[in-house]
Amino acid sequence: MRYDNLRVAIVGTGRISDLHAIAYRNNPKARIVALCDRDPELARQRAVAWGVPDARITDDYADILADPEIDLVEILLPHHMHLSAALDAMAAGKAVSLQKPMCVNIEEADRLVEAARDAAAPVKIFENFIFYPPVTRAKALIAEGAIGTPLTIRIKSNPGRSATAWRVPRGADAWRQDLAQSGGGPLVFDDGHHKFALAWNFMGNPEEVHAFTGETARPDGYILDAPAMVSFRFPGNRMGNLEIVYSPELEIITRHYAQDDRIEITGTRGVLWINCGHGRLGNPAPLAVYRDGQVTTYHDMETGWEASFVASTQHHIDALTSGTAPRLTPEEGRDILRFALAAEESHRTHRPISLV
Amino acid sequence: MRYDNLRVAIVGTGRISDLHAIAYRNNPKARIVALCDRDPELARQRAVAWGVPDARITDDYADILADPEIDLVEILLPHHMHLSAALDAMAAGKAVSLQKPMCVNIEEADRLVEAARDAAAPVKIFENFIFYPPVTRAKALIAEGAIGTPLTIRIKSNPGRSATAWRVPRGADAWRQDLAQSGGGPLVFDDGHHKFALAWNFMGNPEEVHAFTGETARPDGYILDAPAMVSFRFPGNRMGNLEIVYSPELEIITRHYAQDDRIEITGTRGVLWINCGHGRLGNPAPLAVYRDGQVTTYHDMETGWEASFVASTQHHIDALTSGTAPRLTPEEGRDILRFALAAEESHRTHRPISLV
Amino acid sequence: MRYDNLRVAIVGTGRISDLHAIAYRNNPKARIVALCDRDPELARQRAVAWGVPDARITDDYADILADPEIDLVEILLPHHMHLSAALDAMAAGKAVSLQKPMCVNIEEADRLVEAARDAAAPVKIFENFIFYPPVTRAKALIAEGAIGTPLTIRIKSNPGRSATAWRVPRGADAWRQDLAQSGGGPLVFDDGHHKFALAWNFMGNPEEVHAFTGETARPDGYILDAPAMVSFRFPGNRMGNLEIVYSPELEIITRHYAQDDRIEITGTRGVLWINCGHGRLGNPAPLAVYRDGQVTTYHDMETGWEASFVASTQHHIDALTSGTAPRLTPEEGRDILRFALAAEESHRTHRPISLV
Amino acid sequence: MRYDNLRVAIVGTGRISDLHAIAYRNNPKARIVALCDRDPELARQRAVAWGVPDARITDDYADILADPEIDLVEILLPHHMHLSAALDAMAAGKAVSLQKPMCVNIEEADRLVEAARDAAAPVKIFENFIFYPPVTRAKALIAEGAIGTPLTIRIKSNPGRSATAWRVPRGADAWRQDLAQSGGGPLVFDDGHHKFALAWNFMGNPEEVHAFTGETARPDGYILDAPAMVSFRFPGNRMGNLEIVYSPELEIITRHYAQDDRIEITGTRGVLWINCGHGRLGNPAPLAVYRDGQVTTYHDMETGWEASFVASTQHHIDALTSGTAPRLTPEEGRDILRFALAAEESHRTHRPISLV
Repeated sequence: MRYDNLRVAIVGTGRISDLHAIAYRNNPKARIVALCDRDPELARQRAVAWGVPDARITDDYADILADPEIDLVEILLPHHMHLSAALDAMAAGKAVSLQKPMCVNIEEADRLVEAARDAAAPVKIFENFIFYPPVTRAKALIAEGAIGTPLTIRIKSNPGRSATAWRVPRGADAWRQDLAQSGGGPLVFDDGHHKFALAWNFMGNPEEVHAFTGETARPDGYILDAPAMVSFRFPGNRMGNLEIVYSPELEIITRHYAQDDRIEITGTRGVLWINCGHGRLGNPAPLAVYRDGQVTTYHDMETGWEASFVASTQHHIDALTSGTAPRLTPEEGRDILRFALAAEESHRTHRPISLV
Repeated sequence: MRYDNLRVAIVGTGRISDLHAIAYRNNPKARIVALCDRDPELARQRAVAWGVPDARITDDYADILADPEIDLVEILLPHHMHLSAALDAMAAGKAVSLQKPMCVNIEEADRLVEAARDAAAPVKIFENFIFYPPVTRAKALIAEGAIGTPLTIRIKSNPGRSATAWRVPRGADAWRQDLAQSGGGPLVFDDGHHKFALAWNFMGNPEEVHAFTGETARPDGYILDAPAMVSFRFPGNRMGNLEIVYSPELEIITRHYAQDDRIEITGTRGVLWINCGHGRLGNPAPLAVYRDGQVTTYHDMETGWEASFVASTQHHIDALTSGTAPRLTPEEGRDILRFALAAEESHRTHRPISLV
Repeated sequence: MRYDNLRVAIVGTGRISDLHAIAYRNNPKARIVALCDRDPELARQRAVAWGVPDARITDDYADILADPEIDLVEILLPHHMHLSAALDAMAAGKAVSLQKPMCVNIEEADRLVEAARDAAAPVKIFENFIFYPPVTRAKALIAEGAIGTPLTIRIKSNPGRSATAWRVPRGADAWRQDLAQSGGGPLVFDDGHHKFALAWNFMGNPEEVHAFTGETARPDGYILDAPAMVSFRFPGNRMGNLEIVYSPELEIITRHYAQDDRIEITGTRGVLWINCGHGRLGNPAPLAVYRDGQVTTYHDMETGWEASFVASTQHHIDALTSGTAPRLTPEEGRDILRFALAAEESHRTHRPISLV
Repeated sequence: MRYDNLRVAIVGTGRISDLHAIAYRNNPKARIVALCDRDPELARQRAVAWGVPDARITDDYADILADPEIDLVEILLPHHMHLSAALDAMAAGKAVSLQKPMCVNIEEADRLVEAARDAAAPVKIFENFIFYPPVTRAKALIAEGAIGTPLTIRIKSNPGRSATAWRVPRGADAWRQDLAQSGGGPLVFDDGHHKFALAWNFMGNPEEVHAFTGETARPDGYILDAPAMVSFRFPGNRMGNLEIVYSPELEIITRHYAQDDRIEITGTRGVLWINCGHGRLGNPAPLAVYRDGQVTTYHDMETGWEASFVASTQHHIDALTSGTAPRLTPEEGRDILRFALAAEESHRTHRPISLV
């Protein structure tokens, strides 16, 4: 199936929907035509802000699915609602963009994968970070041999605070503290999805995962699963690590979440660093490579975090209008979910988790 | 006991002895008066190179211990010989500087600790890295509150190759491949001692250690225990990680071993980086701190790796001439040995190792 | 005189007016109420883009001056029209913001200074660069003694090309090639005003100026007065230099003009660098200080070039609503004009020009 | 004429001779066989330090010239003695290495150039800075097109103080304050020679030179010709600038003179920086290039200032043993002398000096 012009409904108009909307608003092949939220007032604010002139606003998801003038449903709901919302959209023949993580456990993911195989329209699991321009540039450099064969990956998630961060309504996030709704911890599982997707993006599926996971309360009482040290083995004598640490007084330079994200990939011949993501500590080069006595830094790319959303959505529009597969496919989304769930399970069971 | 002027015998005149000798040669309170090696020709070369005019050279350690004109024995022997050499020196009333790791297992370490308690002269376990000027400066900055309370530490050991590295005689290192002589792998245990000492230096003793450890052959057939991902938990919700990766074609800028060493310490308020050790990738700032929107780099210190040996020996001379305790004490050396051995055991047993 | 709420007319709605408008659009104490341009269609586009709902659009400046509902006139016209436009606005009792350079020669500047002394409302010469956040932060750091006493200043203007620069309509700039309209060369005099203002901002008025000035054609035929090397002496054994060089294939990272701007100030105790302006080469720290073996970089400030316009306008709104003097005063503007004109004269006469 | 094995006499065994001696001591094709100094005790100390076993030490230059066992005379005398010492050496058939600046005025230089044309053995003017590894690497990169065509060069000399600098005997330098002996100021003329040689090395001979030159006393009373701003035009619309500024409390990281030296070369396509010389502010990359949105730093080279002396002497040994021309030739030395003298003359006459 191939679309000429995408009519998009955004389901869930919370904080993050601002970044999902950008590419739809700027691409002539797509337009946002409907908004759905349990809080219609919130949806209305978005409609005005986005200059969506004829948006139909509803608090009933069934309205969206029943509307023949909608091609694509962008699902931005709490995690535990992902499966049923996606299954319903597939049943209604809609193309689907489903926010990561696709589901809250593997059983759900299996059902979604199976349903997507028979669906009339394609399903994309929306993972922005692997579309972040420094990440895609890094992947291209590695493919060109910039660091030889990658041997290890190190990822760091370091949330802090920021005078310039955007504001996230406190209540809107409450469901993330309920494991039944979220599926896992806010840093190892929810934000962790981005990081495990990055590890998968550069190194493939892991064979074994081990996690030490702590617990820290933010000043507002919100409980974080930090610090955490997650280690993983990949086939072929390759390894990786995710360090998560919450620094309550670390001032982050950002317009989005107050979090520093870093990636270091060590290869047989060189080392590559991606030095920013949600925010920055100072203004390090977004992308740097050491090799053969030379350090090269790359600056001719967008580095705002929103660029990862724009590129992910842009890729989706291209896939739907050209009839190619979206990225992540549901199968890929399940692989990353399994990776993240293994970190959760290792913490619970106090042992490394095999994935082979 | 307090010494006015130290007469030093160096026992084992291999590659590393060059760095141990520097401070003795430049400090008026000490002088090298005797050398012992099973290869007297090697010892003779060192005597000439060091301009040690009246060095007595022997291949019999008993000669050293019987010599009343020797105050301090610097033991630079294969690990499995450490215990007996140190016990004999203590019995002979000599002050001892014993190269890390102090012994090959905890039972040996316990015997050494006990013997040292009753010895007439003090015993120092020689660990140079915690005396490396960027490390001591980092410790002072942290004590002043530069990054708030340290929460996590990340250490990386990345050996490669180097056109400018010093030459290590291949044969001289053969014993390191025999676990009975070395006590553990060349990177996780032998070089790892430096890294666990650093983790201990900044964070104290760990409660739990987990390791994934691989195996890689160097072009010359030497087997390395790399890559490895060692994670550890400290009391009080603090954690750490040691990443070891061998990059056969990574060109390192060094005059010593071809290895890049990095440390990152994340605190409640800031992040601190130590960016060099044996060698360098490019010439990053030796020490950097991020805090409150500012990055400060520190340059007014020695950064050559030999400076860590000079400072460690200098500290020892000061301790012996002032009658204060050397660092590491045998008890401290045993703590670090236990840390390193836990990483080895986790790998063997495929589970995290508790140290509490 | 003190204003509660500023009603602003923008006179000249070309490329640069976008940056002048930002602060008026975001400050509740001001609003743009009228636009004037010889091309009413251009003015109409701006009105729509700025969301100026009730803008009165005219191509007749007299309409603006006759309108009692206008408090402040922002004059963004070709340089040779500055004097008469400003004199007329003063005569009409309007507050004035006059784009730099205030006039095309000193005689004109003298008339303007004199008229402003008797004017009912204050006159500001609009120079954005001295309000650029890295510049104001640098000035504050120097005042705190960060580099001791400043001894020399070095400024570099390096235009190139850029895939991401904004588009400047070719025709709109044609008057800049006519000395009678522009008053001087595009880089030494027009853009140079910013640089001489920066030199003045940090070092005061010069005593002597010398310039070597070359000539280079851009690919589009536009003639640039580059390269140029302008040197200047300040009282008290202090000096400065402005290097201008046009690099036709130098790719600049920018959203505005394709130009790299750098400042280096050397003091008795330290050195300070401002590393960006219109654009960037890579992403150097916006502001860095070396002193006492430490380099500190500062990142907690806006670095987009538009921030200089926002801060300059914001300062003006504050001055007008609080009744304090705007910066630049006409006298200050004349000082900077004299500085720039001395560089032009030195080139013409092949000798250093004394300003004392 | 071609030499198999160079027997070298060093004439003048002051501070700088240490750096001249290094390459002779390490090259099997050369050896230092005689030393000459008016202070034989100083010469004797050097002989011991250099391990020159059979050095013949004299305070009479005639002894050196009469000795048939000497091939090459390295002249390290005050500037006003250069001409006669070099002429005498040529007359005695010796190969000559004459420290920069070759003479104290152009008339002397002309005589030396002429005499060298007829001399039996070649004459090298010793200028170390153009052999500094970051400089030769920069030149090679530019030749490969790294920055397109060079358009401007900016050089900075910034002496300060340093806790780690070498010690220069105060008395030994007194002659440099006497213009008749030195030929020009310590920074514009004497150290300036290095900088004008660098400008010439990258850009060729200038057409016009202008200088503003101030005067500052060091705490020890020594008078420096600082600050200074020297500008120059090269043929083909290219330009350059030398900024000299003395910062009495600027702490420089160095083992030699307490001075920061920087070079920036701007080309049609890129910009290149050389960030160290005698010393450093922090540890910037020794060599960096910006082009096409990427910054590359180069680290696989020696950066100690002594490396420039070693490479210059090494080049000389190669030239003499292979029969090729040394660099600088006397003609080249004269070109650079003229460049430096023009800066001096511009200051005296208050006008730009034409050199065409």
